[in-house]
Amino acid sequence: MSRSFTIAAAQLGPIARDEPRRAVVARMIALLDRAAAADCRFVVFPEMALTTFFPRWHLTDPAEVFSYFEESMPGPETQPLFEAARARGIGFYLGYCEAVAGRTGADHLGFNSSILVDPDGRIVSRYRKVHLPGNAVPDDTLKLQHLEPWYFIDGDLGFPVADTLSGRVGMLLCNDRRWPEAWRMLGLQGAELVCLGYNSPSQLPDNPRQNPLRKMHHLMPMQAAAYQNGLWIVAAAKAGMEEGCHMMGHSCVIAPSGEVVALSSGDGDELLPYRIDLDATAEYKRFFDFATYRRPNAYGLLTEPH
Amino acid sequence: MSRSFTIAAAQLGPIARDEPRRAVVARMIALLDRAAAADCRFVVFPEMALTTFFPRWHLTDPAEVFSYFEESMPGPETQPLFEAARARGIGFYLGYCEAVAGRTGADHLGFNSSILVDPDGRIVSRYRKVHLPGNAVPDDTLKLQHLEPWYFIDGDLGFPVADTLSGRVGMLLCNDRRWPEAWRMLGLQGAELVCLGYNSPSQLPDNPRQNPLRKMHHLMPMQAAAYQNGLWIVAAAKAGMEEGCHMMGHSCVIAPSGEVVALSSGDGDELLPYRIDLDATAEYKRFFDFATYRRPNAYGLLTEPH
Repeated sequence: MSRSFTIAAAQLGPIARDEPRRAVVARMIALLDRAAAADCRFVVFPEMALTTFFPRWHLTDPAEVFSYFEESMPGPETQPLFEAARARGIGFYLGYCEAVAGRTGADHLGFNSSILVDPDGRIVSRYRKVHLPGNAVPDDTLKLQHLEPWYFIDGDLGFPVADTLSGRVGMLLCNDRRWPEAWRMLGLQGAELVCLGYNSPSQLPDNPRQNPLRKMHHLMPMQAAAYQNGLWIVAAAKAGMEEGCHMMGHSCVIAPSGEVVALSSGDGDELLPYRIDLDATAEYKRFFDFATYRRPNAYGLLTEPH
Repeated sequence: MSRSFTIAAAQLGPIARDEPRRAVVARMIALLDRAAAADCRFVVFPEMALTTFFPRWHLTDPAEVFSYFEESMPGPETQPLFEAARARGIGFYLGYCEAVAGRTGADHLGFNSSILVDPDGRIVSRYRKVHLPGNAVPDDTLKLQHLEPWYFIDGDLGFPVADTLSGRVGMLLCNDRRWPEAWRMLGLQGAELVCLGYNSPSQLPDNPRQNPLRKMHHLMPMQAAAYQNGLWIVAAAKAGMEEGCHMMGHSCVIAPSGEVVALSSGDGDELLPYRIDLDATAEYKRFFDFATYRRPNAYGLLTEPH
């Protein structure tokens, strides 16, 4: 199997609060059709790709919160996505909310998770988001809440990599992209490609000074991470005006050089295909040659408790 | 003392192999005069600021190699720099080669070091470069050698910070800027300003594919580090055609937002003053709030030996 192939960020436009999963899955299958036409071997869907981004709200109805979680993956409503992908010989990364059996109430029902599915339809890796941003308890004085630590449990699977797609592939989710530790954990395991889905508002109404910098703050840490770890990044956004909140879009492919080689411009469902070559990681992995040049003995604070 | 003040990168143009220290120090004092005129409280000189960048050569004469090292700091030839700075009430960062007493031969004579001198003329912090790039043994088949691990001992002082300039200040040297661990070690200790001197060729004749990206590879990791750690960076270059090797220049000031707010354009001695406010770090330190959001338990590999 060649280490050079076409991959795509499969950006999703807004998903309404009352939009049923089967409608979202139909949109995703339409993107798979475009991916097949573009000869893609793999597509990256966003974080929490099956529903609206509900952590923007302080929801008190446990039944509604539970409705955003998946009890099984694939489940009855996502099975068609798996079948469509396998039929087209396309693997995928999917972000979704993973329910933990037996949880009730409106908080901590499960994980903010992602899976890696190979072109044969097998789940080859699972990740649970480590860096949950926002408030751990609701603060109704904020203009825009971001309640991931309230709804989700901290990820407990570390930063796994999988040998698939004739290379080594890792996963991250959204806010993880701002933390160099997350990228380094994958780089140290030899990751050559990292898939990342995200839901990021284009404006922070409670922190407006950062608004003009949002695109830079999205891209720059990933560019540095790609370069410093010698890996490809494919990042897929939720985009457009979703339930009154504008999501930033700007799905992208970043090369191991740190260059942004593809960038979405639209606010809707959009396929961003790009032909990558996993062998292009070697130049930067050699340049930084961790075994020769890193100095773990000097990094003690990095793993000490706060 | 105010936490808002003017600081400057004091870039140096080329230094010839046979240029005496007193000539270089005179150039540095001329930059201090310009810094005083610009009301600077602090200036950042380059790495290895007192001599040419000799690790580009495989030198076999121990006497010549030793001539690039300082036996004391200040010493007879650098004392005038200390006096000139103190007389003007300007503190400084200085990169230099630090001899270790008793070493002979042409290799491992000492450290690639920097000091932080406060406006009262006191040395308040010392750093010895941790990430030495290039070859540990000479390889005369290369078009351009970079023999820091051959000439220098690995830094053994960790990543110190000092409480000075009404804030907390750290130091790094050159290649350290490409390693997120170095920045995080300073960020975890609350650094608000990091001074960095460097000697980077604008072209890599043995790795020419990176040549068009050299400026990006210089700035981007620092921009990400400033943002991810909420700190100011002042980076001072050796610039211009030095002994047949063009040094990249592009001295800069980077804000805690990650924005490059000042950038040198010349190839010679150049003062790049900029008014910084250490309080501007708070917004980003709050945003990333390490105690709340970092997950050291998930970062185990970062400090494991290779």
